[in-house]
Amino acid sequence: MIDTPYLAVDVGRLDRNIESMADRARSAGLDLRPHAKTHKCAEIAQRQLAAGAVGLTVATIGEAEAFTDRAGSGPGDLFIAYPLWVTPGKGARLRSLARRARLRLAVDSVAGAGRLATELRGTDVEVVVEIDSGQHRTGTEPGQAGAVARAAVDLGLNVVGVFTFPGHGYGPDDTRRRAAEQEFQALSAAAERLRDNGIEPVVRSGGSTPTVEFAASGVLTEVRPGVYPFNDAQQVELGSCGFDQVALTAVATMVHRTGTRVVTDAGSKILGADRPPWVSGFGRVFDAPEATITSLSEHHAVIEVGSGAVPDVGSTMHVIPNHVCSAVNLVDELVARFPDGSDERWPVIARGANT
Amino acid sequence: MIDTPYLAVDVGRLDRNIESMADRARSAGLDLRPHAKTHKCAEIAQRQLAAGAVGLTVATIGEAEAFTDRAGSGPGDLFIAYPLWVTPGKGARLRSLARRARLRLAVDSVAGAGRLATELRGTDVEVVVEIDSGQHRTGTEPGQAGAVARAAVDLGLNVVGVFTFPGHGYGPDDTRRRAAEQEFQALSAAAERLRDNGIEPVVRSGGSTPTVEFAASGVLTEVRPGVYPFNDAQQVELGSCGFDQVALTAVATMVHRTGTRVVTDAGSKILGADRPPWVSGFGRVFDAPEATITSLSEHHAVIEVGSGAVPDVGSTMHVIPNHVCSAVNLVDELVARFPDGSDERWPVIARGANT
Repeated sequence: MIDTPYLAVDVGRLDRNIESMADRARSAGLDLRPHAKTHKCAEIAQRQLAAGAVGLTVATIGEAEAFTDRAGSGPGDLFIAYPLWVTPGKGARLRSLARRARLRLAVDSVAGAGRLATELRGTDVEVVVEIDSGQHRTGTEPGQAGAVARAAVDLGLNVVGVFTFPGHGYGPDDTRRRAAEQEFQALSAAAERLRDNGIEPVVRSGGSTPTVEFAASGVLTEVRPGVYPFNDAQQVELGSCGFDQVALTAVATMVHRTGTRVVTDAGSKILGADRPPWVSGFGRVFDAPEATITSLSEHHAVIEVGSGAVPDVGSTMHVIPNHVCSAVNLVDELVARFPDGSDERWPVIARGANT
Repeated sequence: MIDTPYLAVDVGRLDRNIESMADRARSAGLDLRPHAKTHKCAEIAQRQLAAGAVGLTVATIGEAEAFTDRAGSGPGDLFIAYPLWVTPGKGARLRSLARRARLRLAVDSVAGAGRLATELRGTDVEVVVEIDSGQHRTGTEPGQAGAVARAAVDLGLNVVGVFTFPGHGYGPDDTRRRAAEQEFQALSAAAERLRDNGIEPVVRSGGSTPTVEFAASGVLTEVRPGVYPFNDAQQVELGSCGFDQVALTAVATMVHRTGTRVVTDAGSKILGADRPPWVSGFGRVFDAPEATITSLSEHHAVIEVGSGAVPDVGSTMHVIPNHVCSAVNLVDELVARFPDGSDERWPVIARGANT
């Protein structure tokens, strides 16, 4: 008996999710470079690489360091998909990484490229230009991609292509398909601007778990989904997976019952507080698909079970987080449950690696 | 130069916040038992105790273990303000704690009291009954408090009073005052039900940072605010503090600018994703009070600076999280900045102590 709450991984489902995404990318002729910020876990990275992933995507230098030093799968191939502002301190860390792994970095402005060049000129890092395909977060407009790439090359950087993240594909109805179309158009336009500037965009990288099924291989060369090994309540509600493809849950104890309202000990400090306006609640209950998680405190999930059976106080419940990347970052280890009934503890090696 | 993003504490403001709450409790004749889930930090607990706090409140056994073993302030006095379902595993941990600290535990049902009694009968732990004063999370109805308390006493437990958390006081307009009134009424009614059952409710504990200024000392004997040492964007928007009383910010680097939209590298993995419907955005910017944080990804805060000055890419920004308890739980240490310009690193000793 492990004290609740904790995060459990169903390894059978995890392996099926990993295989299925690898098959999809292979059939579409796309390289698969999974985003490791989701799991931050060497055991899962190794499974993704064994299934054919070409390397990993990460969000921070700290995540890259964790996977280079501890993933134990030979020389890494890592893409930090973030327009870092490379201070001298971060520059030293990146130069050290570049000696130990194949490294791809991102720029989205001439100023950012200047900082990167100052710190990393003379290394063999590859550089890609981030494009805004409609999320309006980071990334340059497609029309500006040629100018940014040209400036980076003139500064001595090795520009190999473009990338985008269609994060605005997280939404109801045909939001996913429309975001994938914008991704396609933005990468096409940006690739043309690079060619106009005499730079061949060998890498054209995009994709996310909810949009990857619409990825257009004519334009894209690579996809970077993150959430798919586990899936989560957001993906269920987006229609990009079913309950039977959810491989991670918070195992919780029901501590309170008043009528059809029950409360478990898994709250926002293990599930995360993510709650986009288009989801039904603060997560879903694996054991009670019709239940609604109506509110979340740090150590309480308040659940309306509706017309379903009401469990007794002391019962175990399996709660699916809305956003699994946030949940994993809240624990030091995952409890991996194998189909044969055995358990392992998998360390979350890049927990809190924010810098 | 510390790599961004990181959490910085302004120790001058922290000390003023701690003194000010201690004065308020003293003037009102109330014991102050701060909730340590907010800071999870021995250095801050010691400051609260030195200012006159009677002990600490915590949410989990793990937090109690951290503060007993590492706070280093002599025999602890700890209240786990949560209706634990005490399995044999948790029972063993609680018995060990009860030998090392003065311990107060909570029940809100006869079934929960039964589990607690099975595991802890014969120890000198104190027990209080949790009352639902209107948040509708855990806690028994005031009218049922006598029955729960009577059952706990009959099971051999040492029931010393009642407590509630008026968490529904987090809201606009006069929500805070109304929740404090309901707290007062619920604790009064519950205390009467204990007396009807021959049990003297010596402890009548309530209070939270936004409601504590309305706490009625005639009924309450103790308050348990958590957020006040730091404050956060929620408290600013509730009107329970000003910007000049915010003592914790995420120090971030601006990595992108498009017009008046800027993006920093402090996202939900350091700020937390909490975003109640009544706040203006996903946090506030200390340096730009008029700016709005319009969206948050794991490593991006998208900020609309409006008519204010637009900083250059590479600038440092100080971002105030919506909910500081979530933010602190995302880092291993706080950077404490003293008025004399010196820095210390304060470990977050109970990070992720969810069980």
